[in-house]
Amino acid sequence: MWGGRFSAKPDSIMTSINASINVDKRLAEEDVAGSIAHAKMLCEQGIINEVDCDDIVEGLDKIINEIRHDKFHFSVELEDIHMNIEARLKKLIGGAAGRLHTARSRNDQVATDFRLWVKASCTARLDQIETLMKALLSQAETHVDWVMPGFTHLQTAQPVTVGHHLMAYVEMFSRDFSRFADAIHRMDECPLGAAALAGTGFNIDREMTAEALGFDHPMANSLDAVSARDYAIESLSSIAICAQHLSRLAEELVIWSSSPFSFVRMSDAWSTGSSIMPQKRNPDAAELVRAKTGRANGSLIAMLTLMKGLPLAYSKDMQDDKQITFEAFDSLDLSLQAMTGMIETMTFNKENLAKAASGGFSTATDLADWLVRDLNIPFREAHHITGASVKAAEEKGVQLWDLSLEELQAIEPRITNDVFDILSVDASVASRQSYGGTAPVRVREQIASWKERLL
Amino acid sequence: MWGGRFSAKPDSIMTSINASINVDKRLAEEDVAGSIAHAKMLCEQGIINEVDCDDIVEGLDKIINEIRHDKFHFSVELEDIHMNIEARLKKLIGGAAGRLHTARSRNDQVATDFRLWVKASCTARLDQIETLMKALLSQAETHVDWVMPGFTHLQTAQPVTVGHHLMAYVEMFSRDFSRFADAIHRMDECPLGAAALAGTGFNIDREMTAEALGFDHPMANSLDAVSARDYAIESLSSIAICAQHLSRLAEELVIWSSSPFSFVRMSDAWSTGSSIMPQKRNPDAAELVRAKTGRANGSLIAMLTLMKGLPLAYSKDMQDDKQITFEAFDSLDLSLQAMTGMIETMTFNKENLAKAASGGFSTATDLADWLVRDLNIPFREAHHITGASVKAAEEKGVQLWDLSLEELQAIEPRITNDVFDILSVDASVASRQSYGGTAPVRVREQIASWKERLL
Amino acid sequence: MWGGRFSAKPDSIMTSINASINVDKRLAEEDVAGSIAHAKMLCEQGIINEVDCDDIVEGLDKIINEIRHDKFHFSVELEDIHMNIEARLKKLIGGAAGRLHTARSRNDQVATDFRLWVKASCTARLDQIETLMKALLSQAETHVDWVMPGFTHLQTAQPVTVGHHLMAYVEMFSRDFSRFADAIHRMDECPLGAAALAGTGFNIDREMTAEALGFDHPMANSLDAVSARDYAIESLSSIAICAQHLSRLAEELVIWSSSPFSFVRMSDAWSTGSSIMPQKRNPDAAELVRAKTGRANGSLIAMLTLMKGLPLAYSKDMQDDKQITFEAFDSLDLSLQAMTGMIETMTFNKENLAKAASGGFSTATDLADWLVRDLNIPFREAHHITGASVKAAEEKGVQLWDLSLEELQAIEPRITNDVFDILSVDASVASRQSYGGTAPVRVREQIASWKERLL
Amino acid sequence: MWGGRFSAKPDSIMTSINASINVDKRLAEEDVAGSIAHAKMLCEQGIINEVDCDDIVEGLDKIINEIRHDKFHFSVELEDIHMNIEARLKKLIGGAAGRLHTARSRNDQVATDFRLWVKASCTARLDQIETLMKALLSQAETHVDWVMPGFTHLQTAQPVTVGHHLMAYVEMFSRDFSRFADAIHRMDECPLGAAALAGTGFNIDREMTAEALGFDHPMANSLDAVSARDYAIESLSSIAICAQHLSRLAEELVIWSSSPFSFVRMSDAWSTGSSIMPQKRNPDAAELVRAKTGRANGSLIAMLTLMKGLPLAYSKDMQDDKQITFEAFDSLDLSLQAMTGMIETMTFNKENLAKAASGGFSTATDLADWLVRDLNIPFREAHHITGASVKAAEEKGVQLWDLSLEELQAIEPRITNDVFDILSVDASVASRQSYGGTAPVRVREQIASWKERLL
Repeated sequence: MWGGRFSAKPDSIMTSINASINVDKRLAEEDVAGSIAHAKMLCEQGIINEVDCDDIVEGLDKIINEIRHDKFHFSVELEDIHMNIEARLKKLIGGAAGRLHTARSRNDQVATDFRLWVKASCTARLDQIETLMKALLSQAETHVDWVMPGFTHLQTAQPVTVGHHLMAYVEMFSRDFSRFADAIHRMDECPLGAAALAGTGFNIDREMTAEALGFDHPMANSLDAVSARDYAIESLSSIAICAQHLSRLAEELVIWSSSPFSFVRMSDAWSTGSSIMPQKRNPDAAELVRAKTGRANGSLIAMLTLMKGLPLAYSKDMQDDKQITFEAFDSLDLSLQAMTGMIETMTFNKENLAKAASGGFSTATDLADWLVRDLNIPFREAHHITGASVKAAEEKGVQLWDLSLEELQAIEPRITNDVFDILSVDASVASRQSYGGTAPVRVREQIASWKERLL
Repeated sequence: MWGGRFSAKPDSIMTSINASINVDKRLAEEDVAGSIAHAKMLCEQGIINEVDCDDIVEGLDKIINEIRHDKFHFSVELEDIHMNIEARLKKLIGGAAGRLHTARSRNDQVATDFRLWVKASCTARLDQIETLMKALLSQAETHVDWVMPGFTHLQTAQPVTVGHHLMAYVEMFSRDFSRFADAIHRMDECPLGAAALAGTGFNIDREMTAEALGFDHPMANSLDAVSARDYAIESLSSIAICAQHLSRLAEELVIWSSSPFSFVRMSDAWSTGSSIMPQKRNPDAAELVRAKTGRANGSLIAMLTLMKGLPLAYSKDMQDDKQITFEAFDSLDLSLQAMTGMIETMTFNKENLAKAASGGFSTATDLADWLVRDLNIPFREAHHITGASVKAAEEKGVQLWDLSLEELQAIEPRITNDVFDILSVDASVASRQSYGGTAPVRVREQIASWKERLL
Repeated sequence: MWGGRFSAKPDSIMTSINASINVDKRLAEEDVAGSIAHAKMLCEQGIINEVDCDDIVEGLDKIINEIRHDKFHFSVELEDIHMNIEARLKKLIGGAAGRLHTARSRNDQVATDFRLWVKASCTARLDQIETLMKALLSQAETHVDWVMPGFTHLQTAQPVTVGHHLMAYVEMFSRDFSRFADAIHRMDECPLGAAALAGTGFNIDREMTAEALGFDHPMANSLDAVSARDYAIESLSSIAICAQHLSRLAEELVIWSSSPFSFVRMSDAWSTGSSIMPQKRNPDAAELVRAKTGRANGSLIAMLTLMKGLPLAYSKDMQDDKQITFEAFDSLDLSLQAMTGMIETMTFNKENLAKAASGGFSTATDLADWLVRDLNIPFREAHHITGASVKAAEEKGVQLWDLSLEELQAIEPRITNDVFDILSVDASVASRQSYGGTAPVRVREQIASWKERLL
Repeated sequence: MWGGRFSAKPDSIMTSINASINVDKRLAEEDVAGSIAHAKMLCEQGIINEVDCDDIVEGLDKIINEIRHDKFHFSVELEDIHMNIEARLKKLIGGAAGRLHTARSRNDQVATDFRLWVKASCTARLDQIETLMKALLSQAETHVDWVMPGFTHLQTAQPVTVGHHLMAYVEMFSRDFSRFADAIHRMDECPLGAAALAGTGFNIDREMTAEALGFDHPMANSLDAVSARDYAIESLSSIAICAQHLSRLAEELVIWSSSPFSFVRMSDAWSTGSSIMPQKRNPDAAELVRAKTGRANGSLIAMLTLMKGLPLAYSKDMQDDKQITFEAFDSLDLSLQAMTGMIETMTFNKENLAKAASGGFSTATDLADWLVRDLNIPFREAHHITGASVKAAEEKGVQLWDLSLEELQAIEPRITNDVFDILSVDASVASRQSYGGTAPVRVREQIASWKERLL
């Protein structure tokens, strides 16, 4: 393979560490597509003749069919997907196969194949994110005015609606969507034609191959074309951020389905039991989704470590990019689907949510706001009055609305009966009508707007 | 501060771990800007009166001036920048200060201040990246046709030009630029008005504050507004990728300025000597830039770890976001400036570059390509002929062009005298005229195109 | 400083990125100790005379006193702590100062100072971990037989005791202790005397300086001495693992103090309130401890990234090791103290714990075990019988022990009245007497054993 | 499997994300060993009878043989290795199989199997590290007095010997060895018998199973036993540090085998060629070893992320621990073997090493030291004289030893002819006889000491 200047064969460990075929055979479709585009371009430019081109294309079609139907024998001795396919092509069509590698190198094949794979995988994630957003949207619509505690520090802060809470995740995942979209746009340029690293003296047409492979344009610098992996790292970063968003939702599902909370019940299809404790209903899927932050962070840091300090152009270190990247994409693939399934099939417990929403003096801020708005008391003073009221209710073991007007007036004489209009959980939620607020009227607008955008 | 329901004071360690003022005082400008925007909006909406508003704005102006001139006393007891400023405002203007906190919460102040800071810092990095690109462009133009070895695996592969090599980095940094630009665009929405987490019952105008603070629009979900940190993580990821690009260039500078290479000489202004070895000229700045990948990867993973599994809305864990983020931005700030300085002032050694470019049979591929193009030999066969020629030259201890026609014909009889036209380094470089290739004619086009875009 | 071979001064950015004095001034004590040890050794070996040695030691004593009392002027121009101290020494004692640097280099000063610091900081963490273990031990003893739900997947699995649960953390932190102890042992060798990298021709006595600085022995290879940072990374890894243990306990504290759980109440000294919601009692300290996993993971990955691929011996990249390491140690310092404070002052709610322990059919496994043990039914079959019993109880809306013997016998006729002896939570807990089990008798043994070891 | 309380089957995506058999089948040996130890103990304690025990052991023997000979059908429906083996056992021996699960749970099976695997894998790495150390030792002995440049900042600093340089790595890898040894010692305790999390009411003998499985003692707390993963993280950290050491050596091999350096030539067995550039001899194995820092850092951060904030006891998140850990161990396995192979077969180029060692005024420190030692000039002054001498030599384009006595005396009149005895590279190296120094006499002692320890 290397021009006969090596007298000794590689050590068997060298073969193990060096061969990538077990990993990069996953790039078979991309490799064949790249070769077909290259062959047709070589023919169009008169670098190879039509007969050879037809033979090559036909041979490659046959090979990809063999691979699709598990009839292709992958050989570790042939190291990688490129050499495996080329060797098979030679067997199938003979000498013409040797012309396919004109004006290209494994370096730009690797670069092209991997970029095509990453781009397609990002695109697939876009669809899955959208599906998850729709599932959230649907649950948000159904529960648009169900009250639940809004937490900070996992302490009851103010009542919110289930719809509002779920719509927060729609916003988060929409940014994940746009991150992948930006990454796709940025990586949408074709390395093919960079040859080994310096370009080629053959009169190739890089616009033609770029277009054939669905890229927007060819890359402008051949050294960059074979050296760049920032597109993969950017994708891994988008995966890690999305996995982190998923982990927050997963954590909530685990906590919400714990016995003391009992806000939700995960469906049978997304729960597991125990081999020793027959009463268990475990939110395993949520935990597994939460766990995938491990893989996501790990893959991201693996690639950033790997690429650190590599001089231009190609270094063999880069070969490890693929397994690391595949794993992260696969892991997000499963996570998004699992989360979608959980969201679609989970059931909320209205009573438990409402009960929790009323606890913890969750409408204390409403009292403070009312003091400011209706009695024109400066906020910081209103805050102190509210604190005293909460203390009084707490000592009496009741909710704020259970205090009598006298008890409240003992704290602040200006308080009137009107205050009771704003102390209930439902009144609190309904009142927060600022843009982006939890009032059902606002949440319904959000839902409507997203439904339009997602259809 | 907390409504008088706490009977014991915080433990001193609690104060240490809890107070953020030593870190977040860096957000003073953003905090004051946010408060002024909020006050003016409250006034416009009739929630506070004009006199109070004027007092507040005047007081805040005074405060920011005190801070700018180091005349502000920051107190750890007041915990953070928000409470420090509010307490000072109360002292300056009395009761009206208490009205400023109407319809907002520390949670959305934190969210707004930090987002403003991150956005401004990303914008500052844009300028620095552009400056670095211009420095590279200028050196590329000066050395557009200087030959050097193009390396793969740090082994001489094919000759390229210095201009071409430097332009690869222009491409890389241009993607870093666009990553920051996308991040800025995505984070360009205003959290202010989310209040604690649920929005507010006051009739606030979030469009007005968003506009006043230079944001494109207000955020659509108040829970998301106080919970989101993906904008910071995305910035850290852009920093990490840019740092990784810088590390590759830095590694090359370190290797190139080593004695055996001697491709470049770093200027005095960007080198250091040794306290014990007076002959040393160390590329410290390049090493320090390379080292910053550590900080960049560390900050990114710190934030991804920090945010993992946090339930909505605000959790105190998020307080640690700022120091981590500041450090990464500061580190990239220095790195970009240092790299720009090094690039601007480094000198290339033409002779050493050319000598290295001619070594290692760097035009072997040109021979192979010629056999294909001119003799119509299939590539894989041409490859074998070339291998044999290299072996012959190596055994004789000469370069490829030093072999006689007879010696070459002994390997492949069809070879003619024409072959010598393509075996030289300069011929090799000039021939690679494919789009993106290393031929000076192509590199000049790239340079021209970038100069136009960067002016 | 560099022998006058530089004609231009460093760029101001170069000074910023290069100077480390703002960071490494924290090594002042170690630097002075190292210099005194070196001077005394030089004198003992006759390399400098006693008068010079006395002057040097006296001067250094004066300097460290200036530093301790904030009377030392640190200069950025002098770059680092070593040059700052040396310059001051020259001013104080004149020419003799110049002899101190005989047979040493900044490289081994850096290596020695930093190793001393890391070793001392690891030792300080040992004490703090022990204090935390004692706090856990004390709470475990007080609550040795209080029942609580043992969770898997945050679902009630089997009842355990609070004492047992807390003792699990004693085990975890004891391993953290031993990890730091091993790290200390491994790093306990002295780099001083390595000079720049190759050792020295002066007749120095490295055993003497090693002993004076409290090291077990001098390092055996001078190149390794100035190049090694694995001791710092190992410490950072021990920090990260300990931080991860702390994060698990912190997460439990956050969940346990949420309103639906209400298992514990954090003391006032370790809680915070809200600026807008006067009713809040936030477990901020627990959240901040949980957040420190971010810093810990970040610092670890920063150092691993930084050191990747650095050729021997010293590279300037290594200068960034200190800030990264300081931050992680500081962060664990606060975390351990904060966790100790929280544990010492938290109060458990016996009633809520017991109520939760009885829910979720937590003694189902006890039923299954009884079927195996007393009725000799194979485990898997017993599991099915138990499942059916749980289903029956669930449908009836009662606990297992509320089923009648008839109802149980309808499922499995061999069941007798004896079964009711083992169905209660207390019986369950008392029965698990296997070594390491939750039975109070076992937990008391664990506590006793640890008390002995920790006294 | 879960006691019949689930009415719907798991979703197919749930099955994909939940099943671990494709990963944990690698634990088959450990699982069978654990089950045999458990069965024998149950029998010894009279919990099961001898006939059942014999059937179980015989059945398990049969199963492990089927697995070893690839005759076992693994089923995804059966989820994991434990259920696959149990189901097969039931088929083979019928009812008695159901008794094996008495007094244990999948949780402690998982904990036991994985711990056994990690412990055995750490032990295997010990052997490989020792083999690498021997390879380095052997090359160090052969080249104990070959001179080479000692670098700092990749700039020639002082001459050292190849033997000395290689022995630095022996020290580094010896610490890696001891880190793994400490980790093994710390994890050497048996979780089996923890049951689900709380221990068991059966009268089991945990000492017996611990001993049978080769553990030092049983774990003291059952909650800890099923929750702990610090042993895996500590191993991953040891892997990451070792990988980082390997990356430094690998980087040196890449640089040393670059054409401008040409210090070493990698053997054919550990190099590769190029598909397009027949003259290439690429140090691929070194690059791949360097790349493995990516995987190592990635796996470490993945596990640290995964475990962050998990409440006790078992959470499903932990299922992802195995793949992450396997990958890191496999990657270090290959790296250590590849590095050993490269070291054993590489050849040094004496001439190039010596030439580089003489360049860069590498003996300037020797001149400075001589001025101090023989002329009693304070070090800092000697430093200036040396700087001036280097400048003079540089301007004249010669080495230090090529300056005449007159030229040197023009700089410092006290210099005598004796100075020329110490200016040569060989004299420099020979003179550095301080403990740990580069003088061959010292390096030979190091080698002898290590040979004794490693035999």
